[in-house]
Amino acid sequence: MTCNFLALARPNLQGLSPYVPGKPIEELARELDLNPADIVKLASNENPLGPSPKVLTAIEKELPELTRYPDGNGFILKQKLAEHYGVEPEQVTLGNGSNDILDLVAQAWLAPGLNAVFSQYAFAVYPIATTIAGAECRVVPAKDYGHDLEAMLQEIDENTRVVFVANPNNPTGTWFDVTSLEQFLAAVPEHVIVVLDEAYIEYAASSELPDGMKYLANYPNLIVTRTFSKAYGLAGLRVGYSISSAQIADVINRIREPFNVNSLALVAACAALEDEDYLFRSRQANEQGMEQLELGLNALGLRWINSKGNFIAVDFQQDASAINQALLERGVIVRPVAGYGMPNFLRVSIGTHEENARFLTVLKQILSDG
Amino acid sequence: MTCNFLALARPNLQGLSPYVPGKPIEELARELDLNPADIVKLASNENPLGPSPKVLTAIEKELPELTRYPDGNGFILKQKLAEHYGVEPEQVTLGNGSNDILDLVAQAWLAPGLNAVFSQYAFAVYPIATTIAGAECRVVPAKDYGHDLEAMLQEIDENTRVVFVANPNNPTGTWFDVTSLEQFLAAVPEHVIVVLDEAYIEYAASSELPDGMKYLANYPNLIVTRTFSKAYGLAGLRVGYSISSAQIADVINRIREPFNVNSLALVAACAALEDEDYLFRSRQANEQGMEQLELGLNALGLRWINSKGNFIAVDFQQDASAINQALLERGVIVRPVAGYGMPNFLRVSIGTHEENARFLTVLKQILSDG
Repeated sequence: MTCNFLALARPNLQGLSPYVPGKPIEELARELDLNPADIVKLASNENPLGPSPKVLTAIEKELPELTRYPDGNGFILKQKLAEHYGVEPEQVTLGNGSNDILDLVAQAWLAPGLNAVFSQYAFAVYPIATTIAGAECRVVPAKDYGHDLEAMLQEIDENTRVVFVANPNNPTGTWFDVTSLEQFLAAVPEHVIVVLDEAYIEYAASSELPDGMKYLANYPNLIVTRTFSKAYGLAGLRVGYSISSAQIADVINRIREPFNVNSLALVAACAALEDEDYLFRSRQANEQGMEQLELGLNALGLRWINSKGNFIAVDFQQDASAINQALLERGVIVRPVAGYGMPNFLRVSIGTHEENARFLTVLKQILSDG
Repeated sequence: MTCNFLALARPNLQGLSPYVPGKPIEELARELDLNPADIVKLASNENPLGPSPKVLTAIEKELPELTRYPDGNGFILKQKLAEHYGVEPEQVTLGNGSNDILDLVAQAWLAPGLNAVFSQYAFAVYPIATTIAGAECRVVPAKDYGHDLEAMLQEIDENTRVVFVANPNNPTGTWFDVTSLEQFLAAVPEHVIVVLDEAYIEYAASSELPDGMKYLANYPNLIVTRTFSKAYGLAGLRVGYSISSAQIADVINRIREPFNVNSLALVAACAALEDEDYLFRSRQANEQGMEQLELGLNALGLRWINSKGNFIAVDFQQDASAINQALLERGVIVRPVAGYGMPNFLRVSIGTHEENARFLTVLKQILSDG
């Protein structure tokens, strides 16, 4: 090859590493010649309940229409979300997962010479999206693994266009309270878009965390992103959304792919939004599983970060890669977070009671063998 | 609102109009209070056969896994595509429709100060993607509604990074032959990426059009994009792909969304690729429907552009918007292409025999009423 197409690409891409997802069950099965049915995956913060029957019914009904393009405007889902949150449909933006919205915000408002502010130990997509847009990543040191909102405010300058905050935060599970968010929003300059990533908000009891939607009326620079991938159990289908001012939604609408959300995702999300029983069971299973893991980790003498998500970051106080490898060899997939600057931690998603127990049993064996 | 977030966005976005998709049946039904079952949609180049039973079986089997993220690497589909085309899996890139690949190419290689070359009357996503990237759109006048490849070559300069060519072209249905493509590829400077968009290639008989895949070995700057949305009948699921040099694929992989293709699309595409009978029937229905429309349009004394796609652009030799409106009011959705600079044309997708007949009958009424 005579031409180097990496060198010809935008300058920031040369140093970019692709996002590393949780290892799929089938991939581990191929690599280690294991039976997929014997593998437990607690690596991607997936809902352990399996899909809602109401979602499956909605999908079945839509299957004959697969040769049709999706409704590019997502009319019905936008209307349902608008009703759900008491906003106008023009304030709703749909994405191929909320990841899509994060990317689109970066594409619309970031460029070389500008910057985005976010926290150390924050979601990997923030630096990736910022870097692709050619903008500067201003990474603010975390405080107790969580966002240091006051320090983040200090990093905002006239070239800042976006600040990403996650509540709760992935991969740490940390969160901030109502007062912290209110002070932060009041202090962010009005020209800076605040992306409040609430991908895990449904797992928190309603009084524990601020509800970002409450602040939209007062802050036209606020965009709240949520997803159907976690508590609603639709990770495979890729559908997330944001609520914002209609103007911000209009700008994103100009640049999103016209059919960014597939037609099965659209009907599944409508059904999921109305399935309050599934959401209740998701929360309940998560609370029980979190307690199970916390107690089990305590019994093993391990430390962990208090989490309001559907996952827990375990601190092995030594490089965790050998433990991760030993878990893999025994058919348990969790998530190494060395890429997040947390080499001593493994992030473990809350699974079913049996999956959590399997993880704890295997971990106990590994620790006693070591 | 005190801040103008459109003014704060990247400069090129101010003048950008979102892509206008074909009107969904449900939308027209709402607008005109029609029964959806009475509406015929020939507006989005969709496959009229309905989904392949093998695809539906593959989807059913995957449904219990919906709470899992898709395989972000698309291992199995990439392997099947690589086998199908005799290339390495590292040369395959999967997209949320081939639209996604077009966007990613623009994001990776275009930026302010650079330009992309494409034809007048070419697919709307080329200018949109180029504009979002902040690059210049070099639109080359068409020749007989088709690409003027020699004139396009003349527009390439040292700041050109991408040239988009479609074969056949949408919305005109025009195409170029083997010799034209070979001369073009040989003349494009090696630093310019040639995106050969073959979204409709499966509809052409094998000897009629060049097969872009044959040129990959000799042209590391070539990227061939194809889709499962048309002849394979999966428009609703959003899955397309490209084959290119491994280096180009690597660059795109760095910037694509980690889970850009949903899990049902992955299994459906695998099943569709193997369903040769469905593909055969798609081609056959398209040939018969094209002949039906051509004869019917001739009988009405109308002109049309010769097409190798699954659609035909009809020339009404006057502004076609009134005819389009009259069709809509009678429950027939076709595609106005005034946005493509073709105000006298309507693009009509090939439907079932009954749908085509309904369109011709209604059109005849409108023309005789007018």
